[in-house]
Amino acid sequence: MPDVGIIMGSDSDLAVMKEAGDVLEQFDIGCEFAICSAHRLPVQTSEYALSAVERGLKVIIAGAGGAAHLPGVIAAYTTIPVIGVPIKTGTLSGLDSLYSIVQMPKGIPVATVAINGGSNAALLAVEILAVHDESLRQKLLDFRQQMAEDVLKKDKELKRMGAGPYLKLRGARR
Amino acid sequence: MPDVGIIMGSDSDLAVMKEAGDVLEQFDIGCEFAICSAHRLPVQTSEYALSAVERGLKVIIAGAGGAAHLPGVIAAYTTIPVIGVPIKTGTLSGLDSLYSIVQMPKGIPVATVAINGGSNAALLAVEILAVHDESLRQKLLDFRQQMAEDVLKKDKELKRMGAGPYLKLRGARR
Amino acid sequence: MPDVGIIMGSDSDLAVMKEAGDVLEQFDIGCEFAICSAHRLPVQTSEYALSAVERGLKVIIAGAGGAAHLPGVIAAYTTIPVIGVPIKTGTLSGLDSLYSIVQMPKGIPVATVAINGGSNAALLAVEILAVHDESLRQKLLDFRQQMAEDVLKKDKELKRMGAGPYLKLRGARR
Amino acid sequence: MPDVGIIMGSDSDLAVMKEAGDVLEQFDIGCEFAICSAHRLPVQTSEYALSAVERGLKVIIAGAGGAAHLPGVIAAYTTIPVIGVPIKTGTLSGLDSLYSIVQMPKGIPVATVAINGGSNAALLAVEILAVHDESLRQKLLDFRQQMAEDVLKKDKELKRMGAGPYLKLRGARR
Amino acid sequence: MPDVGIIMGSDSDLAVMKEAGDVLEQFDIGCEFAICSAHRLPVQTSEYALSAVERGLKVIIAGAGGAAHLPGVIAAYTTIPVIGVPIKTGTLSGLDSLYSIVQMPKGIPVATVAINGGSNAALLAVEILAVHDESLRQKLLDFRQQMAEDVLKKDKELKRMGAGPYLKLRGARR
Amino acid sequence: MPDVGIIMGSDSDLAVMKEAGDVLEQFDIGCEFAICSAHRLPVQTSEYALSAVERGLKVIIAGAGGAAHLPGVIAAYTTIPVIGVPIKTGTLSGLDSLYSIVQMPKGIPVATVAINGGSNAALLAVEILAVHDESLRQKLLDFRQQMAEDVLKKDKELKRMGAGPYLKLRGARR
Amino acid sequence: MPDVGIIMGSDSDLAVMKEAGDVLEQFDIGCEFAICSAHRLPVQTSEYALSAVERGLKVIIAGAGGAAHLPGVIAAYTTIPVIGVPIKTGTLSGLDSLYSIVQMPKGIPVATVAINGGSNAALLAVEILAVHDESLRQKLLDFRQQMAEDVLKKDKELKRMGAGPYLKLRGARR
Amino acid sequence: MPDVGIIMGSDSDLAVMKEAGDVLEQFDIGCEFAICSAHRLPVQTSEYALSAVERGLKVIIAGAGGAAHLPGVIAAYTTIPVIGVPIKTGTLSGLDSLYSIVQMPKGIPVATVAINGGSNAALLAVEILAVHDESLRQKLLDFRQQMAEDVLKKDKELKRMGAGPYLKLRGARR
Repeated sequence: MPDVGIIMGSDSDLAVMKEAGDVLEQFDIGCEFAICSAHRLPVQTSEYALSAVERGLKVIIAGAGGAAHLPGVIAAYTTIPVIGVPIKTGTLSGLDSLYSIVQMPKGIPVATVAINGGSNAALLAVEILAVHDESLRQKLLDFRQQMAEDVLKKDKELKRMGAGPYLKLRGARR
Repeated sequence: MPDVGIIMGSDSDLAVMKEAGDVLEQFDIGCEFAICSAHRLPVQTSEYALSAVERGLKVIIAGAGGAAHLPGVIAAYTTIPVIGVPIKTGTLSGLDSLYSIVQMPKGIPVATVAINGGSNAALLAVEILAVHDESLRQKLLDFRQQMAEDVLKKDKELKRMGAGPYLKLRGARR
Repeated sequence: MPDVGIIMGSDSDLAVMKEAGDVLEQFDIGCEFAICSAHRLPVQTSEYALSAVERGLKVIIAGAGGAAHLPGVIAAYTTIPVIGVPIKTGTLSGLDSLYSIVQMPKGIPVATVAINGGSNAALLAVEILAVHDESLRQKLLDFRQQMAEDVLKKDKELKRMGAGPYLKLRGARR
Repeated sequence: MPDVGIIMGSDSDLAVMKEAGDVLEQFDIGCEFAICSAHRLPVQTSEYALSAVERGLKVIIAGAGGAAHLPGVIAAYTTIPVIGVPIKTGTLSGLDSLYSIVQMPKGIPVATVAINGGSNAALLAVEILAVHDESLRQKLLDFRQQMAEDVLKKDKELKRMGAGPYLKLRGARR
Repeated sequence: MPDVGIIMGSDSDLAVMKEAGDVLEQFDIGCEFAICSAHRLPVQTSEYALSAVERGLKVIIAGAGGAAHLPGVIAAYTTIPVIGVPIKTGTLSGLDSLYSIVQMPKGIPVATVAINGGSNAALLAVEILAVHDESLRQKLLDFRQQMAEDVLKKDKELKRMGAGPYLKLRGARR
Repeated sequence: MPDVGIIMGSDSDLAVMKEAGDVLEQFDIGCEFAICSAHRLPVQTSEYALSAVERGLKVIIAGAGGAAHLPGVIAAYTTIPVIGVPIKTGTLSGLDSLYSIVQMPKGIPVATVAINGGSNAALLAVEILAVHDESLRQKLLDFRQQMAEDVLKKDKELKRMGAGPYLKLRGARR
Repeated sequence: MPDVGIIMGSDSDLAVMKEAGDVLEQFDIGCEFAICSAHRLPVQTSEYALSAVERGLKVIIAGAGGAAHLPGVIAAYTTIPVIGVPIKTGTLSGLDSLYSIVQMPKGIPVATVAINGGSNAALLAVEILAVHDESLRQKLLDFRQQMAEDVLKKDKELKRMGAGPYLKLRGARR
Repeated sequence: MPDVGIIMGSDSDLAVMKEAGDVLEQFDIGCEFAICSAHRLPVQTSEYALSAVERGLKVIIAGAGGAAHLPGVIAAYTTIPVIGVPIKTGTLSGLDSLYSIVQMPKGIPVATVAINGGSNAALLAVEILAVHDESLRQKLLDFRQQMAEDVLKKDKELKRMGAGPYLKLRGARR
């Protein structure tokens, strides 16, 4: 059984949410994807949340855009931690998504990450699972170490090359 | 059976939502009030919406603040028109409520009125009911007439008194 | 005679407003289109609204951008429900349109939908017409059923293919 | 006949709009006040604007709050300059009023001043009238001179007293 | 001597400001262009404003973006009406320009038009000049008449063709 | 050893953060409070985070206002989940706090709750701890049950009394 | 001769700007206060800036609200560092002031601090003066040390008393 | 040893930050570049700041986007002036970066420039260094003079060619 459910209101959110899956895969954490609209599939959405504990899910990551109710609706039906990912929208740039997800009323929290923050949502899920899993915490430390080394490497490269050549190279690599 | 359901996410929204009830009363339209949180009472909320048609409701007015999911969640479970009232909040002044209500995704609309627009929500409900009710349309016309006369009366008073004295009188009347 | 008038402040709003017409067509509801600027054609605009009832219109959908006065001005001249569609703008992304439409003063409501929400405006009009039309309500239920099945089908496809291949396929289909 | 019409959507805007009248009085420019809602009195509002030129008005100052259509609607019916005053609102602080007034579409301008900028609206009207009135321009220069002297006097007082005592005195004077 | 000065903070604003010149040309009103930065050319900017009256300018249109001080600084040095055009910016979409121009303090007004509203700035200048020029007012009425006819023509075309074909044609014409 | 650290940038945040402590107490979860500024005590702040795991902390709740760096800085130094509480500010209402906390870059997530959402931060911490603690999950279910009953009780009371009397009573109770 | 000029657009800004003076006094740095409006006293304002260097000023702190041009206008006339303090406004909470000050065009920078950030403006001035003054840098280090100790003392008190009693005491002390 | 450190949270900020380096080069001021993330390299970041004074740095320019903590974190660890450059972001256009940088709490200032204002950050650094360096001040005056002449040249060109041809030429030059 997967530990993490990654759900989204529409398949147009998949590019962002797949980043979450990719991060979880790096940590060997099982996950499942589902499209699960709070408005177009309300019954199935509530059932997904209601059955989450018995199906063994430990964290749910929910992404949605606009009047982004999915994370909050899921959170209303389950007690496992729900991480909300506000998806960038074409009109209000995801500010609507952010407010709809983060401003939850007293009693039902949603752990909100940055707009389009799919990969950070997964890292937060890993941190939550690592609370009781020392080997996972170690993997997190390794991940951070790697991340730091990547930045240090770029820093070294920038210092070696100078800003102009580095910038050109970076542009060329794209 | 009442024609209009007036629901709200918390009894702290009642001052705004009662304005809706007062307007409906002026038009002799029956209404019922309910507190019905999308997050704290999700099952009852869905049941309220699912039973709305058979219970004879024709319009639902739903007010909520913050991550204001109530109107959208209700709309997901029923096909009768749902009017959303964004409630002003202590932190983001109701901008969060407005975005959470108005920015609904394709497929499930919510008819949104102004922040704290309880009485306009009721007038919109009356307009909807009047689509097939000539006597109600006449009442609407009378209401508009009365509203116009009230403004005209104030306009006349202002012109008679002058701006200074009118402003003082207005201040004193409060 | 058509039941729904779809009007807009400029023909640059037509792409969004045509979506409303397309939805109404799916429901076999007659509609008429008009360009009808509150600022450039104020007299004709008021005449359009004043004659709406006797011409048999039951709902008006009005789209406008920027200082988007059209829905509110129409609403001032008629008692039939007016649905406002805030059009996305090049400078303020439609926030100006949204505020100009939704923040109507006490007495004259406009039923506001999402920025560029042409199709939801039409669905709201259908819901309003269905208040007294059981066969239309049934069509709405069918429409929702279809919508749910479309999401379920995508959900199934995503689960079968996995996120990576689905995303590639989705990109390719565009 | 007065040169300037000062109109507002509601008598709750009078405190701000009276400042305009007070400034015009300082310049011996005749003005008239009217309450004139674009939504509750649309016909009278259009008539006010349509008759403005023949009644001898040279400038109209229009204040409104929320979905503040009054200045734009007036401007649609007349070719005399319309100055719009966005009124501060209880929910969106007048941002709604500002966007509704300033973001007018091509063809019909409204000269917008600051939120609650009643007195600057009047000064702009004076500047407009002074384009063809040298004595009025002189009065404007005198007004500016006086304004400069008031600031210089405060500056001198602040330097003489020091910041602490000046602040206390200022607090006490209120 | 030209009646209207059209100034801008940078030649990157010229595309918007040229629209003002084009409109004035339609009305046979003489204008002059100048680049005149409040920050990079402060002395010349103040001299431009200080000499405006004696050089015969009757209105100044000033466009600027970002911390858009030019209109306000010009207004501080002259008593002729200053029309401010907030230029859309790459970062804050012109919201910074709008606030910097419209929120002028008591005493020094700037007549603000929409973001990128170059042509409306010119129309406002025409309205101001027409206060004492009947033939100019007549031209304004003709302009409005033409504008109305253009909209009516499009409306007729839309009704004749239907929304789909009209939209295609419109797309093709671009 | 306490399971949860509740830290804040200034003792002016304590009223909001104490709500978190009160909720944790209801669940018999040990917590510790600390004032720990990212800017005024950077070294101690990093030490607090670096020692969190070995001191047995499982979750950290961090509240801060304005340029609210505390949650992100803490998260940079530890791999245990960090919950960020944006504190409402006197100038930008907590929008600055929200953006500073939620918009974390890839690699270091902060689980953000609503502005001033102290009690929801604690509930999120409980949900995280309950991932591996069935008895805690049961307590969460009881808490939700109690919350639902409180709303139902209010709903019943509102229906029994009617909106007017309920509102008066509610006002009187304050 | 004072090293720092503290200027403001209106004496209503003095409460915030006096905080700057108080901080400079702590560091024994001489300062002078002036009221100096970019709009009401443009000539004197430019003269103040033009003479700053020869009068021995090393830094200017300029506070202004709304369309807050003062810091930018000062910066246009001098090459000494100008620190801008956006003053909170009654309508847009100082967002207008912030944008007007921080979004300066290429070529003329203003060092902007937080809305109402009078004391931080002074600390920034001290840091600038300390670039070439070791004893001043030492004073800054002492100031930071003191600040850290104040936080540590509060932290200790909070831990000793517990959150409840501390909060009560804090409330009582006000 | 370089006088100015130019650091950034990610190499994606380099295009903006290189502008700072280019300006410093024009003034013959030595600078060093570093990538130095407050979140991914917190220890190295603090060490960079802690060693800045002894390494001879006189000013640090720090650019960051989103929850942009880098400038504030650097400022917490050093007493040399820190200039913050908010980087434009893909979701909130740099508003998040701006708020995260400018709204620093009392005690630790960051001198904030415009969003993406890399070159102005450098000019501010030059102004700071010029406080005790007359030859540098002279270079600043020359720079301003050159900038003014560039604008004057464009102004002359615009006047000679007329707006239309100038605009075409400008477009062609791109």
